[in-house]
Amino acid sequence: MTDDRPPTKITLAESEIPRRWYNLLADLPQLPPPPLHPATHQLIGPDDLSALFPMALIEQEVTTERYVDIPDEVLDVYALWRPSPLYRAYRLERALGTPARIYYKHEGVSPAGSHKPNTAVPQAYYNAQAGIRRLTTETGAGQWGTALAFSCAQFGLDCEVWQVRASYDAKPYRKIMIEMFGAQIYPSPSPITESGRRILAEHPDSPGSLGIAISEAVEVAAQNADTNYALGSVLNHVLLHQTVIGEETLLQLAKVNETPDLIVGCTGGGSNFSGLAFPFLREKLAGRMNPTVRAVEPASCPSLTKGKYAYDFGDVAGMTPLMKMHTLGHTFIPDAIHAGGLRYHGMAPLLSHTKELGLIEAVAKTQRECFEAGMRFARAEGIVPAPESTHALAACVEEALRCKETGEPKVIVVALSGHGHLDLGSYGSYLAGDLVDHELSEEAVAAATASLPVI
Amino acid sequence: MTDDRPPTKITLAESEIPRRWYNLLADLPQLPPPPLHPATHQLIGPDDLSALFPMALIEQEVTTERYVDIPDEVLDVYALWRPSPLYRAYRLERALGTPARIYYKHEGVSPAGSHKPNTAVPQAYYNAQAGIRRLTTETGAGQWGTALAFSCAQFGLDCEVWQVRASYDAKPYRKIMIEMFGAQIYPSPSPITESGRRILAEHPDSPGSLGIAISEAVEVAAQNADTNYALGSVLNHVLLHQTVIGEETLLQLAKVNETPDLIVGCTGGGSNFSGLAFPFLREKLAGRMNPTVRAVEPASCPSLTKGKYAYDFGDVAGMTPLMKMHTLGHTFIPDAIHAGGLRYHGMAPLLSHTKELGLIEAVAKTQRECFEAGMRFARAEGIVPAPESTHALAACVEEALRCKETGEPKVIVVALSGHGHLDLGSYGSYLAGDLVDHELSEEAVAAATASLPVI
Repeated sequence: MTDDRPPTKITLAESEIPRRWYNLLADLPQLPPPPLHPATHQLIGPDDLSALFPMALIEQEVTTERYVDIPDEVLDVYALWRPSPLYRAYRLERALGTPARIYYKHEGVSPAGSHKPNTAVPQAYYNAQAGIRRLTTETGAGQWGTALAFSCAQFGLDCEVWQVRASYDAKPYRKIMIEMFGAQIYPSPSPITESGRRILAEHPDSPGSLGIAISEAVEVAAQNADTNYALGSVLNHVLLHQTVIGEETLLQLAKVNETPDLIVGCTGGGSNFSGLAFPFLREKLAGRMNPTVRAVEPASCPSLTKGKYAYDFGDVAGMTPLMKMHTLGHTFIPDAIHAGGLRYHGMAPLLSHTKELGLIEAVAKTQRECFEAGMRFARAEGIVPAPESTHALAACVEEALRCKETGEPKVIVVALSGHGHLDLGSYGSYLAGDLVDHELSEEAVAAATASLPVI
Repeated sequence: MTDDRPPTKITLAESEIPRRWYNLLADLPQLPPPPLHPATHQLIGPDDLSALFPMALIEQEVTTERYVDIPDEVLDVYALWRPSPLYRAYRLERALGTPARIYYKHEGVSPAGSHKPNTAVPQAYYNAQAGIRRLTTETGAGQWGTALAFSCAQFGLDCEVWQVRASYDAKPYRKIMIEMFGAQIYPSPSPITESGRRILAEHPDSPGSLGIAISEAVEVAAQNADTNYALGSVLNHVLLHQTVIGEETLLQLAKVNETPDLIVGCTGGGSNFSGLAFPFLREKLAGRMNPTVRAVEPASCPSLTKGKYAYDFGDVAGMTPLMKMHTLGHTFIPDAIHAGGLRYHGMAPLLSHTKELGLIEAVAKTQRECFEAGMRFARAEGIVPAPESTHALAACVEEALRCKETGEPKVIVVALSGHGHLDLGSYGSYLAGDLVDHELSEEAVAAATASLPVI
């Protein structure tokens, strides 16, 4: 530690937690295409969603107000880990020999170990306010299920999580953590629901899928008046809640007088990336700064770089509203890569729209390059990044090495979505040389998107 | 979050990281009995230790100066996670319904997930300064091995870790993390050393022990001039390095105008507890405050509450210097409880001495009571505590519930030694009802301490 340079961690006081979420819809030159009813293809209204979501969240889904106040009760829980630290990656810079100045916003300090509680907490809060007694949800690798379980415990809600069977069996630590926070967790397909029983009758050994798990969670919520459903990404209100990440980062960069040249984050459904990027897009649209904003997705699930921008369902069964988004087709099943949180066929409609407007760019990375960047980062900075986050780090390392060539001292801001303590098995596979790279071909994309709904 | 109460996290600026370690030896009314040579029983000198440790650490082991300056290079690495946050446990207080005000000092934010890097970093630094190329060590559950691997990576040292075979097989995540930080890790007993080969010849399937692993690590260090050995607890210089915990906590409590009534921490070798407690003992000895200082140990390995205060070896083989400490006998093998970091037959000599002087008190807890407290804490505060830390939490909960009876608004400060992300299997056993309580009987203690060396 030397007194003549900015600190390693740029921290904020608890009183500097943002009091408002930022809504990008207010500042876009044009609004994104609206969601449509899955059967009628007509515009959907609040009533179509009220069986699953409380009115406060439905309003946040459609509002075009620039800011939404964060309730005191939510701020009170946020204070357990927010403001999250922004780190200057001095040691990674030195290891790379780059003149770039690298900052990373670390969301792994939360109770679930990722950015997910930023939206799980308000979702639980608004449901509790609406008199709901129980929330249901699906989870893949388990980050979202952990976040919702924790959040429900804070507001006295019951929580039931359907976890994709393959992950349920392969990652027992996540299951235990979800149970510690007081939630019920079931492997999906389960005999509890009609959807689950139908699958099990045909395939007793089904490994499950996110699509099946969504169907089970939605079914239980739709059938019980005291039960709602919660989603961890994709929807506007989820992205809205995540903007605390970018708002804090703006404050933190201002404290060290930095203006970013590049913002990078990983994208699966798009919530971590949007949470960091949207407040910067506000600044960019207002002409106050002009960073490149780059989404990084897995080469095996490249919705933004290779998918079609079209109306599609959010789930495999076709029960959700139709959303205009970058998609590989709702029946597409991504390869079993280790970044489970990025294995989604579509991309958040609002984020897809910013791509169409030219506000963001996207690249795809194979998982070995990502884990290699994750290893470099861990040795230098002492933090094991989540496999999802390594995608952002791979793009960061690439840019930093480019700066080494050109001599440009670019300011790079990286979204570190979470820690990888419960994903160390993936690093074990990397160290053992067992990781396989899957790059989705144009032909495979064409086949996967051939049966998109015709709107 | 409300503006009319102190914050949830009491944080310090990076510039407030302590610049000096505190040495309790300077303030004690009498010095502890000195270590003795294992063979001659004479006082040992610096030369007896120089095959294993660099002179800077040997000097810190014996100095009676009140403060030791922390090198800039060490502060620079500390800045990755220090100052660590002190939390006000508002949600735990509410869950317990106690008038007590509970604070916990969270060392789980470090690269290894515990307090261990506080000493691993300076140990690696001083060895690198002395021209050493490689450090060897043993590890049980893996916290110490992870910390040393990370620290060696920061100063360009090779690192070799012998991990007790049973843990090596049972906790593969720890092994992967140690390898990520660039260290070599071997299951112990290993065929690499004479000590290991001797055991393997007799017991090819030996599950290993900390004593065997120490022998292997020491053997390699003693035989190679460019190689030293590092120990993660027990010794004076280790406890010295850990005092950054207590120094920060004093600053943090001062910011919210609190004076502690009770300090609690878990004790295995004693380093986390001493790190928090020693600066408070300085204040107590100077009459500036008068907290009760309470060590909490497992009922299955109760060195402070049931052990003898006597000269004993630090390892099973009897190769280390003889140290006057509370001990269950160096041949004692504790039951296989889940708090692996507390399974040590002895207690740090300096901490044992403070117990003899009446400066601290000690209690023992069974593991089910500890895990129950850990579960309560996790649900309320969103942090999964390490099994070791749950011992401190069990004593905290006990005191907080006593306050509920009496109405006393006591200020309790808890040492949270680390997070339990890599120990979730232990919580799984708790949730499944599989945990067994082992309470060591007086008869078993008498048997275990019957063959202590006669000095």
